[in-house]
Amino acid sequence: MQKAVSLPVKIVGLGSYLPERIVDNAELETALGIAPGWIYDRTGIRERRYNSGETAVFQAAQAVRMALAHAGLTVADVDCLVGASSGGQQLIPCNAALLQSELGAADGGSFCFDINATCLSFPVALATVAPLIASGAYRCAVIFSTEIASRSLNPAQKESAVLFGDGAAAAVVVRTPNGEASAIHLSRFTTHGSGAKHTHFLGAGSLHHPNDPDTTPAMNQFDMNGVAVFLQAARTMPPFMNAFLADLGAKPGDFAHVVPHQASGHGLDLLHNRLDFCPAQVVRNIERRGNVIAASLPMAWSEAVHARRIRRGDSVLLVGTGAGLTLGAVALTY
Amino acid sequence: MQKAVSLPVKIVGLGSYLPERIVDNAELETALGIAPGWIYDRTGIRERRYNSGETAVFQAAQAVRMALAHAGLTVADVDCLVGASSGGQQLIPCNAALLQSELGAADGGSFCFDINATCLSFPVALATVAPLIASGAYRCAVIFSTEIASRSLNPAQKESAVLFGDGAAAAVVVRTPNGEASAIHLSRFTTHGSGAKHTHFLGAGSLHHPNDPDTTPAMNQFDMNGVAVFLQAARTMPPFMNAFLADLGAKPGDFAHVVPHQASGHGLDLLHNRLDFCPAQVVRNIERRGNVIAASLPMAWSEAVHARRIRRGDSVLLVGTGAGLTLGAVALTY
Repeated sequence: MQKAVSLPVKIVGLGSYLPERIVDNAELETALGIAPGWIYDRTGIRERRYNSGETAVFQAAQAVRMALAHAGLTVADVDCLVGASSGGQQLIPCNAALLQSELGAADGGSFCFDINATCLSFPVALATVAPLIASGAYRCAVIFSTEIASRSLNPAQKESAVLFGDGAAAAVVVRTPNGEASAIHLSRFTTHGSGAKHTHFLGAGSLHHPNDPDTTPAMNQFDMNGVAVFLQAARTMPPFMNAFLADLGAKPGDFAHVVPHQASGHGLDLLHNRLDFCPAQVVRNIERRGNVIAASLPMAWSEAVHARRIRRGDSVLLVGTGAGLTLGAVALTY
Repeated sequence: MQKAVSLPVKIVGLGSYLPERIVDNAELETALGIAPGWIYDRTGIRERRYNSGETAVFQAAQAVRMALAHAGLTVADVDCLVGASSGGQQLIPCNAALLQSELGAADGGSFCFDINATCLSFPVALATVAPLIASGAYRCAVIFSTEIASRSLNPAQKESAVLFGDGAAAAVVVRTPNGEASAIHLSRFTTHGSGAKHTHFLGAGSLHHPNDPDTTPAMNQFDMNGVAVFLQAARTMPPFMNAFLADLGAKPGDFAHVVPHQASGHGLDLLHNRLDFCPAQVVRNIERRGNVIAASLPMAWSEAVHARRIRRGDSVLLVGTGAGLTLGAVALTY
């Protein structure tokens, strides 16, 4: 489906934003009437952040400003803004067009569009934008993911209601300067549409329109069958990853860091229980962030870079699953 | 911002789908209490189609089947499905993941994701997918746009309520075989975020969540300031197009066909009133289709190809504006 084409693309800046409000398990266990300890045992999460009214685009702008500062660039350097979230702040226009104004970027100075592959939106956007950066079509792209999951939780579905947190993350992407090693080596994504029903949000579209009197509140909330998702991921990920590694000519141990989507504690455990990665390779922030949907992966990456765990030149594997069910992996030299 | 990089990409199939129900101006003028003739004078539209309950993804599948038949390919040949609509059938997962099952395509046989740039989603998706096809990352991509605008019309805002129609369109994209001329020569998009407020749909996202009691029905409908959009497009399009043509080394008369987004009659007239295209170059289907949002442009293209007006090897310019406000142009050899 895809073959290896190393692209001279460098992530020169990473940033993230967390709403201030920390929601710990005790608060949710009380609110949802579940036993103390249930959440951590099931999900590996101890706390997550909830948004207190700031907009999704405000969250994104904070993460983008941090990423630009990290890159030593300004908003005037950006000629492409790519939204990579599970949904928009509003239906029209796309998040990226709204972010241009929020950042105070020049009107007409950048191209703004969104990419949606649910939880994998960020690596999909990176893989999609990379050839445009490598070819010089754009000089400097910002990819951002911003999520306010807390407004769409269904308290009647405890397993998903405890899983999600809010936040944003962003990356600044440029062509690799001559003589540097940064590159995207291989990107691959595969969708198993039979799993679409296991993670969905039925509303906010044409099928169950918000104004349709038959649309129920639960249709406008996350609906997950966590066990079904886990089983499908456990079944499909090993052959997917084996094929990816074979085409790359790499072994699991070759990556200095694996930055996964933080789907769930058990989902992350698949990386060393069913695939052959070591726990020490895996960047894991779910314990304190929860699953921040599309923002999870770039947030974990940004945190690991700013903590100086991931360093320039390190080999990194981005990997994960997203609603669809889509599997994805991107191998790069940071 | 973008420079010319001709990509060996060929659109091998085009298709479209129209719901059966024809809604003429007399019906809308009666329903909305407006004077006979007002709609045609304002918009250049005589009729449009309204969906009768089929899903957005069903519409898409019909258009994709026609495009695959046109290409002489089957769904088994497709390894990338790209949704390019203004919104989804549901929030999660993306339209493309839902389409995989609707088409009866193999589970795990393709990568599915959506791109959103409102009315320009199709040319943005084409420009974004083209390098992935040219490089061999994917062999055969299907890009589809499917819209059910009729569920989001605000009868209190007559100018937008009469404008939109429903339908879908799709294109099959492969690498150009050696020795053939088909190519994408230049793609460019620029967003003027100051215009975001002139065309928006405030609901169906995190800002005015469908379950928020403060969300009003009007927030879940199109809201357009047609005059403001027209004036911004009239002001920004000439310098945008001049720069595009200069970088391409082309004059307006060099294109055999101009396939625009069918924004409105007056918007289409800009192509010969403010830009230097001839009316005879412009493919115009708004009179009988209305503005079908993201599906307008590929539907006009498909209809012109199937009517044998656009022929293999012809030079084609895709052009238009979309909510954002985003301007876009793609120059190609069909």
